Amino acid sequence: MKAEIVSIGTEILLGEITDTNAQYIASRLPMMGIDLYWVSQVGDNRARIIEVLKRAWNRSDIIFITGGLGPTADDVTRESIAEMLGEKMEIDPGLEKTLRERFGRYGFDMPLSNLKQATLIPSAQSIPNPAGTAPGWWVEKEGRILITMPGPPRELNVVWQETVQPRLEKKAESILVPRTFKLFGVSEGGAGEMVTDMLEAANPTLGIYAKADGIHLRLAAKAKTRKEAERMLAGGEERIRQIIGNHIWGVDDETLEKIVGRLLTEKRLTLAVMEDSSGGTLAPIFNEIPNSGTFFKGGLLATTDEAKKAFGVTLAVLSENKPGPDLARAMAEAARNFLKADIGISTSGSYEATKDNPMGTTFIGIADSTGSRTISRPRRQQYITSSILFELREILLARD
Amino acid sequence: MKAEIVSIGTEILLGEITDTNAQYIASRLPMMGIDLYWVSQVGDNRARIIEVLKRAWNRSDIIFITGGLGPTADDVTRESIAEMLGEKMEIDPGLEKTLRERFGRYGFDMPLSNLKQATLIPSAQSIPNPAGTAPGWWVEKEGRILITMPGPPRELNVVWQETVQPRLEKKAESILVPRTFKLFGVSEGGAGEMVTDMLEAANPTLGIYAKADGIHLRLAAKAKTRKEAERMLAGGEERIRQIIGNHIWGVDDETLEKIVGRLLTEKRLTLAVMEDSSGGTLAPIFNEIPNSGTFFKGGLLATTDEAKKAFGVTLAVLSENKPGPDLARAMAEAARNFLKADIGISTSGSYEATKDNPMGTTFIGIADSTGSRTISRPRRQQYITSSILFELREILLARD
Repeated sequence: MKAEIVSIGTEILLGEITDTNAQYIASRLPMMGIDLYWVSQVGDNRARIIEVLKRAWNRSDIIFITGGLGPTADDVTRESIAEMLGEKMEIDPGLEKTLRERFGRYGFDMPLSNLKQATLIPSAQSIPNPAGTAPGWWVEKEGRILITMPGPPRELNVVWQETVQPRLEKKAESILVPRTFKLFGVSEGGAGEMVTDMLEAANPTLGIYAKADGIHLRLAAKAKTRKEAERMLAGGEERIRQIIGNHIWGVDDETLEKIVGRLLTEKRLTLAVMEDSSGGTLAPIFNEIPNSGTFFKGGLLATTDEAKKAFGVTLAVLSENKPGPDLARAMAEAARNFLKADIGISTSGSYEATKDNPMGTTFIGIADSTGSRTISRPRRQQYITSSILFELREILLARD
Repeated sequence: MKAEIVSIGTEILLGEITDTNAQYIASRLPMMGIDLYWVSQVGDNRARIIEVLKRAWNRSDIIFITGGLGPTADDVTRESIAEMLGEKMEIDPGLEKTLRERFGRYGFDMPLSNLKQATLIPSAQSIPNPAGTAPGWWVEKEGRILITMPGPPRELNVVWQETVQPRLEKKAESILVPRTFKLFGVSEGGAGEMVTDMLEAANPTLGIYAKADGIHLRLAAKAKTRKEAERMLAGGEERIRQIIGNHIWGVDDETLEKIVGRLLTEKRLTLAVMEDSSGGTLAPIFNEIPNSGTFFKGGLLATTDEAKKAFGVTLAVLSENKPGPDLARAMAEAARNFLKADIGISTSGSYEATKDNPMGTTFIGIADSTGSRTISRPRRQQYITSSILFELREILLARD
């Protein structure tokens, strides 16, 4: 099936907004075996919209249209589609009722101009829009499908997930369902060697990607229905977990932050951080984890010796006057003591290039009731955050 | 002049990247009086690229093309343009020399496949690309201009700024040059009243916008040349500064952070922060200001009473146990004392809705050698940061 996207809105042509809707839709089509051939943006101009739509109607099987469904006179997407198809717009009593109720709920009378958002053409079914006043249109005619959706990304996303994608999946000959396994403590090559035979399989396919939070294994099953694809995924997942399960820390949209927050809460342990080379960026990450009030004791940004001393880092360590494992340990211990936390974390970085770390090294200090130690990592901000979170996860899983 | 943008790349149609180049170009055309009518994205497919280009050639005066200039076989933008125009690609000896030198500088032999990046067609001049190996083409033919630029945004931006925009400005009948004045301590309406007559002027035009860092006045002059426009801007700026100059803290891309950092360095004053409601987000902002090592003593994230106590906030204030002006003052003083800084800053927020601040209020504490005080602001993160920076600027300007 050949698909085409038409994004409508003069604000796109003026460069005031980026058309992110086209990418949103484009990224979801390969999963349903739909090939996207054309994307275009056009302003709120009826003649030019009709020209673009006619061309799309002649060359494509599915046309996705976004934008121009607002209530004002410059929103002419509906009118343009109706004219292109030679059909007449009529107010749909059901849609009008829904729309009036929507305004009523917020204590407003519906402005007359909004009435055109309650229109349909004979070949169109309405697509509900729970996030706004503009429902979409689903047109099937002459063997083609034309789908019109609201332009605000929040509305488009809801309409896509609740109606458009499920309906398209029913029509698709096959659908591709992916599942991502997130790993830490293993290299891309190491993970690859462990799952070599699965990498060669045709369905489900397996891909390996290096990301900031570790290695991602992306398993994708193709089948006639979502249910069948999910059954195949379950089989693949079982094998992956047998082979490499000890490295998997999360699936799909799970994050290390949430997992660590959950474990800290469950184990009733508290945390404090003292930062140097991470520049105060760790503290807000812990602070933003849901429920952080119960486990996060506070953050100390101490880039100067003076500040470190004030937080209780001993003079002896400071007099060495250089970042390194000793300083990181002393800082982690001081954070733990100063804020009376169960676990203290610190960062102390050096810009000195080494063979392994040409950008410099960050030393991560970790102190708990059993003592303190450091791990060293290449000096890359995102990687440091992930390393700390993963290390915390390990420590917390080992606790009763 | 009617313009059209064609973005080329299969990765756009797969939804792997967003076409931000189109917005980049689109946003710069109105200044030169160029009207953008069409934007389209097409994959790396010769037949479809040629179809799109032919249509563009027939309907537009200026065609901007991005992407598909790489060295590999799937990069076919040059070949498609040559075919559409019925011209032949030839290797340009000058371009080949430049390209070989570029590879030489990095100690590589040039792969043969890169040779096509040194080609031209008879109607094309080369557009230098200092940021990459793919120069662009500037074609003028049959009263039309066709401009091909590399797809990686970093390269496109350089090529645009160094060559394309200056050349287009020379051709433009008029160009619009904007200058933005950034204000604080005045409302949108208040600023509007002060400059009423300028708001009504046709050239330069004046617009007022409310932004996170205060009110922006955007003055834009239209003239035949950039020089003439800048002369008009200078006249407008003089008037604006006469009327409202005491509220202007910066122009164009100046930021409050940089201004505060410069003032702290000049006045040899130091700063420390203790945060509650800002959640640790202020400390990294100060830490990232260039030269922060000389003026930023450190940050304390203290969301719990326990942490505040550890940093020296007195029990008497804490026992009141509620966020407010008293707590904010005590926190600012404690930050100043604990880290031995000249100025202490704190945030203490309440979610309690008031008539003025339905989302709650943030109390900002400020302590220096003259004592301590608080200012209260609506609880909105970005606005709090700007308020603190603006307040610091005022304090620092008042110092010798």
